[in-house]
Amino acid sequence: MRLPHGYSYAATYAGIRQDEKDDLALIASGLPASAAAVFTQNRVQAAPVKLSRRHLKRSGGMAGAILINAGNANCATRTGEAVAVSTCKSLARFLLLPITFVLPASTGVIGVELDAQKIIDALPRLVAGLHARRFDDVACAIMTTDLVPKTASAEVKLRRGAVRIAGLTKGSGMIHPQMATTLGFVLTDAVISPTLLRAMLHRAVERSYNCLSVDGDTSTNDTVVLLANGASGVKPDRTELMKVEESVTRVMESLAQAIARDGEGAKKLVTIDVSGASSGEAAVLLARAIANSPLVKTAIAGSDPNWGRILSAAGNAGVVFDPAKADVLMQGVPVCRGGLAASFSEEELKKKLDRPECAIRLVIRGKGKGSARFWTCDLTEGYIRINASYRT
Amino acid sequence: MRLPHGYSYAATYAGIRQDEKDDLALIASGLPASAAAVFTQNRVQAAPVKLSRRHLKRSGGMAGAILINAGNANCATRTGEAVAVSTCKSLARFLLLPITFVLPASTGVIGVELDAQKIIDALPRLVAGLHARRFDDVACAIMTTDLVPKTASAEVKLRRGAVRIAGLTKGSGMIHPQMATTLGFVLTDAVISPTLLRAMLHRAVERSYNCLSVDGDTSTNDTVVLLANGASGVKPDRTELMKVEESVTRVMESLAQAIARDGEGAKKLVTIDVSGASSGEAAVLLARAIANSPLVKTAIAGSDPNWGRILSAAGNAGVVFDPAKADVLMQGVPVCRGGLAASFSEEELKKKLDRPECAIRLVIRGKGKGSARFWTCDLTEGYIRINASYRT
Repeated sequence: MRLPHGYSYAATYAGIRQDEKDDLALIASGLPASAAAVFTQNRVQAAPVKLSRRHLKRSGGMAGAILINAGNANCATRTGEAVAVSTCKSLARFLLLPITFVLPASTGVIGVELDAQKIIDALPRLVAGLHARRFDDVACAIMTTDLVPKTASAEVKLRRGAVRIAGLTKGSGMIHPQMATTLGFVLTDAVISPTLLRAMLHRAVERSYNCLSVDGDTSTNDTVVLLANGASGVKPDRTELMKVEESVTRVMESLAQAIARDGEGAKKLVTIDVSGASSGEAAVLLARAIANSPLVKTAIAGSDPNWGRILSAAGNAGVVFDPAKADVLMQGVPVCRGGLAASFSEEELKKKLDRPECAIRLVIRGKGKGSARFWTCDLTEGYIRINASYRT
Repeated sequence: MRLPHGYSYAATYAGIRQDEKDDLALIASGLPASAAAVFTQNRVQAAPVKLSRRHLKRSGGMAGAILINAGNANCATRTGEAVAVSTCKSLARFLLLPITFVLPASTGVIGVELDAQKIIDALPRLVAGLHARRFDDVACAIMTTDLVPKTASAEVKLRRGAVRIAGLTKGSGMIHPQMATTLGFVLTDAVISPTLLRAMLHRAVERSYNCLSVDGDTSTNDTVVLLANGASGVKPDRTELMKVEESVTRVMESLAQAIARDGEGAKKLVTIDVSGASSGEAAVLLARAIANSPLVKTAIAGSDPNWGRILSAAGNAGVVFDPAKADVLMQGVPVCRGGLAASFSEEELKKKLDRPECAIRLVIRGKGKGSARFWTCDLTEGYIRINASYRT
């Protein structure tokens, strides 16, 4: 993995979660970085979400460090804001940054007081541990119910040199589209202004994190941050900026897919493609309705080519379409043509559905040009096991 | 159970489902009955839904018989309409009714051709079996993944005599509010005109079936029918009509609760009360968001007083409210006050949450008068087991 220049990383165990594995992580940029972020649209927002938003505003879209803890969401607690402020302040002092250059993020249980002192006590060894190669340690430290760390990277060759992009993310439940969704941090060493970066992030999230759904729930803490510290010295021109955006989007798509693949209890990554809808928005609604249907997701878990549930889920999307013009394909096999059963070998398709990747396509025949792609996962007994006993 | 006068019932095994238990049922009224119905709002609608709607229109809101089959939804098939028409026609001939007086309803798998001949061959013995006391047989015959038959009844004493109401329903998955939801048949012997009956049904469904959510999915076949055959000879006056409506609503509430209690894999009935919302609609959105949250439902399955998930689900409802004014109670125990953790004994509450009925209350303090009640069930591994192998 060729990491972008000018960033360093650290992780340590601060005693926030019960089992002794890293629960505090730091991403620092040697140069002040342009910064953009999207946050949860939940009415209930965690203290670090509110503070990060405020810091970004006050700093004019600049940042120097991201401080992340796992094991406690720092949400719906008496001391939430004070904890977020005091820990950022303490870190800012260590790194010689204005406090507004520190972006906090938290993930974990809601409604339990977070002890700021534990974080503050851990900061000296966290900062001392900063290293350009400890990227993966951060990816591991921010995991909660995740089974695997999730990272992705890219390099873009431009006229005046190469710029690099690297991202890490966490999340495996409480994943829902149209939200910033989970924690995600994407870093580049390109030179990009805060204004351009913000627009780039919004478009990239729209095509990646916002096309992801695990269980239709949305956390109080969802945050995706994009930093550009300019350490490559390469400032993309207008055309090149589109190439960079394309790569940032691809990195984010890859992170979003990794989340779906690691969905709580998931055994399969499900990709849903809709085409021929009356508009792009209609296609998104159809894809999301299929992605969110527990009946579709349990059928996939059981390798059951139950296309009736897919058609029925689409019918619930609140979108006008003619079911008699709808085709459904599973793993490339036409299972429904014009709203009716197509003839296919159920046995062979069942075998294909046993694979770890499942493709569902809904094609509406006609003049519609709207298309959309969504990622989700199957819904298994494992999801229930994990979520019926998360706290206990 | 004191059944309304003038109805008779029958059930038989027609060979539609594989295991040999009744799969064809008939409700017949000796007198032509006023009839009203609500149907699924899914874009994909089964043939019997379309035909019932057409029959009601053509008959001017009158009906004489309801023909129900389980095991096959008669939806998304080539011959769907022909099957529905020919079976209704055949029954109409037996009962000496116009075909428009027969309302068909089906439940079961989608996309598999339904053999009309099986039903037509079974009709002679079905009609021969009609009996005023075979109400429960119908309730059993229409079950699919249901574990128990679901019935409810009431008697209302009016000035000129008593009228009776009885209802039966099926459904345990694919249950979602704002839809006619599942199959439900409610019968009364009161004298009520089709116009008044229609208005009564719509209001009653709004307060019963539409406050129910099991998994957020909606079937292609959902149907609730209300018949009033006037066999009691009692015509309620205006004030009395409200009493009858109250009882019809109570019967439907009881049926809706029975569905939630029997939700696929469910071990617990969950009642969600929201008060203090800015409007009735806002309260419904909040209650529904809590009822549909897989994270809330799995927490209930695990008897975990994880109120953070309740607050977070409310935050996702798309409704404006101040989380700092939100209280949450579980089993009557305040677990969250003003958006913050209340102090309570987690151990004692866990024990209370082990009960088969769970009450969740969200109270928003302030001037809001909007309130709503929803029913749902916990989400268990059993739901997955049932739905990962429904067809196979």
